[in-house]
Amino acid sequence: MRTADELRDAFEAYLGSLSFAPELGSLEDAVRYALESGGKRVRPVLCLAVAEAAGGDVEDALPAAAAVELVHTFSLVHDDLPALDDDAERRGRPSAHVAHGEGVALLAGDALLVEALGLALSYDDPAFARELAAATLGMIGGQHRDITGDDGDLAEVERLKTGRLLSAAVGLGLRAADIGEAEQRPWRAFGDELGLLFQLVDDVLDGDGFAERLGVDGASALAEDAAERARERLAALSTADTSVLRELVDRLAIRTS
Amino acid sequence: MRTADELRDAFEAYLGSLSFAPELGSLEDAVRYALESGGKRVRPVLCLAVAEAAGGDVEDALPAAAAVELVHTFSLVHDDLPALDDDAERRGRPSAHVAHGEGVALLAGDALLVEALGLALSYDDPAFARELAAATLGMIGGQHRDITGDDGDLAEVERLKTGRLLSAAVGLGLRAADIGEAEQRPWRAFGDELGLLFQLVDDVLDGDGFAERLGVDGASALAEDAAERARERLAALSTADTSVLRELVDRLAIRTS
Repeated sequence: MRTADELRDAFEAYLGSLSFAPELGSLEDAVRYALESGGKRVRPVLCLAVAEAAGGDVEDALPAAAAVELVHTFSLVHDDLPALDDDAERRGRPSAHVAHGEGVALLAGDALLVEALGLALSYDDPAFARELAAATLGMIGGQHRDITGDDGDLAEVERLKTGRLLSAAVGLGLRAADIGEAEQRPWRAFGDELGLLFQLVDDVLDGDGFAERLGVDGASALAEDAAERARERLAALSTADTSVLRELVDRLAIRTS
Repeated sequence: MRTADELRDAFEAYLGSLSFAPELGSLEDAVRYALESGGKRVRPVLCLAVAEAAGGDVEDALPAAAAVELVHTFSLVHDDLPALDDDAERRGRPSAHVAHGEGVALLAGDALLVEALGLALSYDDPAFARELAAATLGMIGGQHRDITGDDGDLAEVERLKTGRLLSAAVGLGLRAADIGEAEQRPWRAFGDELGLLFQLVDDVLDGDGFAERLGVDGASALAEDAAERARERLAALSTADTSVLRELVDRLAIRTS
């Protein structure tokens, strides 16, 4: 079993070696700029860790992990645009549209989205790309609810905006490990709790969402509950070595405490 | 054999009956607004006509035809945004971002793109979605060359921006008719000439591109040559009833004369 840091290194190496459609020409610079923004790679590491814990090969899951990360990056590039959140910075660097111009950033986001689906389509089974497409539509729907203020149900908006793609990271990792639909259920239940934990922690750190509505203490308590349920779900997967996934839960949970 | 107008009616009925991901919520209004802009439906009609001429069933090709039209519509919605062409009108109606706001139009374009790939993924064979994704990346690359002025080779920019998706319309129609890769070649050669014809006619009508570089007469003469080669390619497909495709060529060609 590789540690979470080793999985992240393997992912970075794979991402750096990825080739994109040659027709993108110099648009590839903006695509790579957005991908190299140095995030924690939570989604791809989760995808790879699930694949390995479920008995699969990390190498087989790398395209799926990259597909999920490219969808995430597409969403950041588009969300940062002036038409949406209008964020000039992303992780301490100029956002894609500040560095490359709005039109180029718009097209780079589009390209990331299609390249992501292309990676998911590198598997023979179209179920990979179908799951990624469905999760992406959920994420887009969540973002729309967020900007239109149609967010009466905060939990639902966060589940769509963040949870759907994290859940797809788990699902694609399971598919890469050749786990059938029926056996996926307990793993996906773990993914749902991890997704909720991730959203709660994010809200506590940003002081919005659940933290705004329930206070930091209230949201932190919910996060601790979600972390505990995620650990229980992992413990129930008694035949698998879920130590790396447990480490991911602990790392996430510790950010609020 | 159905006429081109009958194919278009069949396509409109299918498009109207399409359901989108429920998570899109009220974003679906903007998606449908963009799709209902009343274009000529050149790409889906071409896809359906190719499928029928190649011995396939029009019904089997409808999802493929819609996938191509959704990609086209995504590109119009994003291209019209202020960050790109900044067009306030599209076919006599307010553009999507004027009618629905920039942020919503951006997300509606994203949703159209993913729904398009979802339609292509409704086929068991991932080759449908792979071909559509590859064509879409070519189109995005062409648009990038166009806005960055990296358009030294005008023919290449137009082939990417317009030709790749028309070619995918032909390719997906052939796949829907179960035509194998080897037998696709003469049909695709027809598609390439039709794509070139389409670009030339568009430039003559808009007074840009080839018309700007070669004059209206020069571009019209090239269009007539392309139309003639497209007719020859059809004539060479002697075992197929290509009368509807011939009609599509004639309709396109007549627009410049």
